[in-house]
Amino acid sequence: MNHSFVLKGNIIHTPRCGVLELHPNSFLVCREGRAEGIFAQLPEAFAGLPVEDFRDKLILPGLTDLHLHAGQYAYRSLGMDMELLNWLEQNAFPEESRFADLDYARRAYDIFVQALRDSATTRACVFATLHRPATLLLMELLECSGLKCFVGKVNMDRNCPDSLREQTQNSLAETRRWLEECAGFERTRPILTPRFIPTCTDELMQGLGALQREFGVPAQSHLSENLSEIDWVAKLCPSTRFYGEAYAQAGLFGGDCPTVMAHCVWSGPQERELMKQQGVFIAHCPQSNMNVSSGIAPVKSYLQEGQKVGLGSDVAGGAHLSIFRAMTDAIQCSKLRWRLVDQNTPALTMPEALYMATKGGGELFGKVGSFEPGYAFDAIVMDDSDIPTTRTCNLAERLERVVYLSNGKPHVKYVQGEKLF
Amino acid sequence: MNHSFVLKGNIIHTPRCGVLELHPNSFLVCREGRAEGIFAQLPEAFAGLPVEDFRDKLILPGLTDLHLHAGQYAYRSLGMDMELLNWLEQNAFPEESRFADLDYARRAYDIFVQALRDSATTRACVFATLHRPATLLLMELLECSGLKCFVGKVNMDRNCPDSLREQTQNSLAETRRWLEECAGFERTRPILTPRFIPTCTDELMQGLGALQREFGVPAQSHLSENLSEIDWVAKLCPSTRFYGEAYAQAGLFGGDCPTVMAHCVWSGPQERELMKQQGVFIAHCPQSNMNVSSGIAPVKSYLQEGQKVGLGSDVAGGAHLSIFRAMTDAIQCSKLRWRLVDQNTPALTMPEALYMATKGGGELFGKVGSFEPGYAFDAIVMDDSDIPTTRTCNLAERLERVVYLSNGKPHVKYVQGEKLF
Repeated sequence: MNHSFVLKGNIIHTPRCGVLELHPNSFLVCREGRAEGIFAQLPEAFAGLPVEDFRDKLILPGLTDLHLHAGQYAYRSLGMDMELLNWLEQNAFPEESRFADLDYARRAYDIFVQALRDSATTRACVFATLHRPATLLLMELLECSGLKCFVGKVNMDRNCPDSLREQTQNSLAETRRWLEECAGFERTRPILTPRFIPTCTDELMQGLGALQREFGVPAQSHLSENLSEIDWVAKLCPSTRFYGEAYAQAGLFGGDCPTVMAHCVWSGPQERELMKQQGVFIAHCPQSNMNVSSGIAPVKSYLQEGQKVGLGSDVAGGAHLSIFRAMTDAIQCSKLRWRLVDQNTPALTMPEALYMATKGGGELFGKVGSFEPGYAFDAIVMDDSDIPTTRTCNLAERLERVVYLSNGKPHVKYVQGEKLF
Repeated sequence: MNHSFVLKGNIIHTPRCGVLELHPNSFLVCREGRAEGIFAQLPEAFAGLPVEDFRDKLILPGLTDLHLHAGQYAYRSLGMDMELLNWLEQNAFPEESRFADLDYARRAYDIFVQALRDSATTRACVFATLHRPATLLLMELLECSGLKCFVGKVNMDRNCPDSLREQTQNSLAETRRWLEECAGFERTRPILTPRFIPTCTDELMQGLGALQREFGVPAQSHLSENLSEIDWVAKLCPSTRFYGEAYAQAGLFGGDCPTVMAHCVWSGPQERELMKQQGVFIAHCPQSNMNVSSGIAPVKSYLQEGQKVGLGSDVAGGAHLSIFRAMTDAIQCSKLRWRLVDQNTPALTMPEALYMATKGGGELFGKVGSFEPGYAFDAIVMDDSDIPTTRTCNLAERLERVVYLSNGKPHVKYVQGEKLF
């Protein structure tokens, strides 16, 4: 299909972090799935393209969810009275072990994919479980949904219940087979997914590093989320100076291997330096960091020092799939951080939050998350007419209302020029 | 009307703070607007009453919103990039001044009352604005809604824009007239509402104290919300040892005068001692405390020391009217407080949050917020069947899912035995 057309409406995006670009009542041109430009008057050159007029609605880039666990969707909001390591053991692991049963996996992933499709998210970076067949099933369902996702079969070969512990060589063999079997998908691509250092032996990490070099796939994991976890990693990896070095020793920490590290709540100067140098993507998951009592990541500082930062729902550490919710959680947490931890660093602003939710996280997928020419045409159309008010709001205020108050479901959604609904 | 009937369903309430009472598939009897008891089998004595069978749905006490500004509803979520005092000046005050126009007030309050009616809230303690006619209009609309509310005409005679500054004697005369004019409402009762110490002279406070003694009405205001505000009060009231004492000097700090103080984020030992001694209600408003960068109130400690605590949405410092949202905000904030401020005090639990949202805040209205015999029959019926999951959840888990994940709108709502919808 030739995805070329024009949308008309109130267009908002953030080509630069912290700056909102507002184009009231303008034209947004899509040519073969890519943005061509925003125009106050439609240029002659595009006069032949079909125009869809969304009138007074808002048109935003699609949102990217940079970190979430599809296999945990069924128990979001449950067991929230625990800290990370207990929560994993008592909630996450028992649930994930059920995905050995492909029938269960289908029922659970059907619910998850439908919810993700209905949301404002157009791209996501997803943990499945360690089960190869269920992971392939999830990729198939996502492929059919029209969304674009990275999906990872999880690896873990220590410090987890028997039902989830893989034999090291078997884990690597299954991963290789999975990488080969999922090569046919168009929209859904594989991402190497060692769960986190505590559940992965050095041997497994080295083997995954070798697979990364062989297949040229990106990687994702968790980093410096929780103080007890960090202590544990220091004991497990005595040769490292900081947590991130354990990934780096396996070659799975950015550089040639695009890498997403979720959380980074407690990353110290050396870790931050290496993340910056290697272009590691930080997936900031503020709600999860509250729910499992991890803390508040210094995200404003990350933006100031030029780190790559996106937002993650981290379902089911986070209870909500909405990246709009993640934006407001991020802003609210950053205000508490300013008040309680570091008064030298101001709070995040709405334009910064929108940047992280769009272009910041979108960069993992290439030119994604902006309407600048050449960017993939991921767009959501938001209708704020059902949030009643007596005020006449300007566009920036209407964005705030959509982000804080809407139910998070777009009126219309496009992924790379394809209209999903 | 004789409000006597029986509801059947899954009944949950918290007669004691921290303890969830779960009654699956049970009968809840209402006699003349008051709860009579919860029964596994319906006793013979109630066999003649009509039974409404809500099958697998959840039945909870109605929620109480102990602090919110009806005159700010139109701009919730806007201007959230400011701290309290700037936000008041640039957002709250200009909006409130529009309520001098009764047509504007009607449009704005219509939207607000409809939203409150549709929510899970059955009782609320509400700030109007300083305008007597608009305040009476709000009371009329709330009276018709079937909800039970305290509503206050705001007083302020210093440190505010000319358009909102009352002359002291005129403020008192208008307050007296308002108290006389609103005597006829059944469900909607007046509450004295000096905005906060910075906007109220000693003379005004003394005059309001005298009105309180004459009319026997309760009082509400703000206390120790924000550090700059607290510094300011210390300068304005050099004869006080702490902020709360400024209210106490006017006789408006609990004791014979039931008093709600919103926030109490930074209350010190002396203030807490006096609050406890005087039975002051603390309205904990966690989202607002994030949004305007105030901090995190030590709510768990307040519960431990036996303070009276309820939850407030604090619209529009808070963006969301839902007290379910306030419950999860309170839990999440308390986890951050444990992590970042005070590791000797654990986080709030879901049963504690439900207690604050029901019986804790409800106590301001008398025997409200529980299904114990003699309590006013305020109930909400929640349908969780549209939150899909593959898990078979027990009742406590289903409560968590409703609180975190539902849209907050009950299927059916009763206030003192009267069915609203």
